[in-house]
Amino acid sequence: MEPEILSESVLRDFTRAVFLQMGCSEEHAEEAADVLMHADLRGIDSHGVARLSGYVRLWKAGRVNASPSFHLSTETPSTATLNADGALGLVSAPHAMRIAIEKAKICGSGWVAVRNSNHFGIAAHHALMAAREGMIGFAVTNASPLVTPAGGAERMLGTNPVCYAFPAGAEAPFVLDMATSAASNGKLEIAERKGKAVPEGWLTDQNGNASTDPSALRSGGMLLTLGSDTEHGDYKGYGLSSVVDLLSGVLSGANYGPWVPPFVSYLPVLPNLPGEGIGHFVGAMRVDGFRPLEEYQEHMDRWIRRFRESKARKSEKPVMIPGEPEAREEVMRRQTGIPVNDKVMADLRQLAQELNLNFA
Amino acid sequence: MEPEILSESVLRDFTRAVFLQMGCSEEHAEEAADVLMHADLRGIDSHGVARLSGYVRLWKAGRVNASPSFHLSTETPSTATLNADGALGLVSAPHAMRIAIEKAKICGSGWVAVRNSNHFGIAAHHALMAAREGMIGFAVTNASPLVTPAGGAERMLGTNPVCYAFPAGAEAPFVLDMATSAASNGKLEIAERKGKAVPEGWLTDQNGNASTDPSALRSGGMLLTLGSDTEHGDYKGYGLSSVVDLLSGVLSGANYGPWVPPFVSYLPVLPNLPGEGIGHFVGAMRVDGFRPLEEYQEHMDRWIRRFRESKARKSEKPVMIPGEPEAREEVMRRQTGIPVNDKVMADLRQLAQELNLNFA
Repeated sequence: MEPEILSESVLRDFTRAVFLQMGCSEEHAEEAADVLMHADLRGIDSHGVARLSGYVRLWKAGRVNASPSFHLSTETPSTATLNADGALGLVSAPHAMRIAIEKAKICGSGWVAVRNSNHFGIAAHHALMAAREGMIGFAVTNASPLVTPAGGAERMLGTNPVCYAFPAGAEAPFVLDMATSAASNGKLEIAERKGKAVPEGWLTDQNGNASTDPSALRSGGMLLTLGSDTEHGDYKGYGLSSVVDLLSGVLSGANYGPWVPPFVSYLPVLPNLPGEGIGHFVGAMRVDGFRPLEEYQEHMDRWIRRFRESKARKSEKPVMIPGEPEAREEVMRRQTGIPVNDKVMADLRQLAQELNLNFA
Repeated sequence: MEPEILSESVLRDFTRAVFLQMGCSEEHAEEAADVLMHADLRGIDSHGVARLSGYVRLWKAGRVNASPSFHLSTETPSTATLNADGALGLVSAPHAMRIAIEKAKICGSGWVAVRNSNHFGIAAHHALMAAREGMIGFAVTNASPLVTPAGGAERMLGTNPVCYAFPAGAEAPFVLDMATSAASNGKLEIAERKGKAVPEGWLTDQNGNASTDPSALRSGGMLLTLGSDTEHGDYKGYGLSSVVDLLSGVLSGANYGPWVPPFVSYLPVLPNLPGEGIGHFVGAMRVDGFRPLEEYQEHMDRWIRRFRESKARKSEKPVMIPGEPEAREEVMRRQTGIPVNDKVMADLRQLAQELNLNFA
């Protein structure tokens, strides 16, 4: 079935209305809608309006605070920890990034850990806030445990994304936004819907044995880390995922490892948690804290062009710059609209009914 | 042939003597020897005294300045760029890290880009300097181009390592020190010496076609990035390697991408370089800029123990904590000595003769 195409403004208005109905302030509803729309515009469909009903269910279960009071629990000129008071990560992460940017304006860089938060949407949204200010942006978050450490057979880590955004000159920014697992949950769901096996190296069954059955994850299986096996460096993906967990969880005072609260309302939160909510870590470094901005921009453009023009394995598939396909998609979708599949459409219509809102 | 076992002090004295003979100051010779010994002690044999003759050859070729004048070209309270004046990276990277640590003491974090430098040894040495001060340490460097971007067929990136060190409480620090390529050059050399094929996903031949022949790298082939192929996320390893190159090269004013000068004296430096030498990027963040140190240490220990005790795929192979095997090796080798293989022994003896020094 072909997806329906909705304009950005229709989806944005509805999304904002949902957050307002949850009790968010005008400002927070706007911000949260902005993050979800940014995902849909960039083609990261798994992180846009497809998640809206999930946020509502978490709120209904009392696991999201729609009217949080943010406060900094620790602070130095270039660092801070934000207690997000159970907020949507869609709201706390941009708030933390604004603090990081203000710190960077004053002393060159700013780094903010966030605890007591929830799912923060696409990391690229937050990192790009810094890039627009002539800064290098960094954003990571821990997430519901689905991933096993290298050599392990237990869900200990989330897909823990790492994101860096580097501003350029005439070129679009360089944006790396990657899960530290070999494959994302979203890719498994697509394969499962199509009834297809997935490549070896993506997941294991519940005993830690290799599996190519995408449904194994729902039956207690585990995702593998980037690298997939010892020979190909799964311990590196494990290490990166751990760094994300340490920055987001241990440093901030949030939960970490197997204790990170699930994103879905039907899974319970574990007892005796070591921290509060889930955690993020964001940062911004002023480019001109290292080198004059114009000089940097010139070399950044040169880097991008040299890589884009480097020899490709197949001449019809040129080497890509991280973030380039998403930037292109964003330009296109702003004009032609956002495709929404039937499952998500049904979900949004159901949500509209529940919350007594109008929807397409 | 069994390797010879040398005591740390014999190797350290000889290494320091070699650097003194190159014209390094007492202080620099001590520092450079320290970095190489740290690699040998931690069991990273590819980055210890095995590299000593390579540094000497680069110096003889006029590509290393043994008596550099360091200066900062740009500075804010939490950031700076160090012009290393052609120094050994073994000396400039610790110098940069000391500046980062001083900045962090004053304003919470410190970040120093380094240009006009050379190979910096093991990244873990530099990151651990911060961990010893109750700070999270970060160290990356770009390197001679040997790696192709995802989908590419050209040497555009180095094995560009990423290192993070997190201090703990009673436990040893968490140390991730990983190349962003699927496999290291060193692993290929070992396979080649043994005449063994390597796994698919490590390298390609000169045309970008998959290869399992370890000698393909010397015949113009390329290393693949972490992830190995599209299905397993080679674009993620490419993205991470690029981030290292941008921080180390583009941000600092060093060379980047295919222009990074080779580490070996028999390969020429390209003409019309966009920057100076190779580049590094180091950083330090005070833990207590985010959370009281004791509280953090307690949770860091808990994180480490929970992961160590998590369910392993094979009960005889427990899940490892990044940096743990190296820390164990260091304790052992400090007592029992450092194994040096025959090839490296011959190399060191030859060096002793050339420079008119005594050696075992």
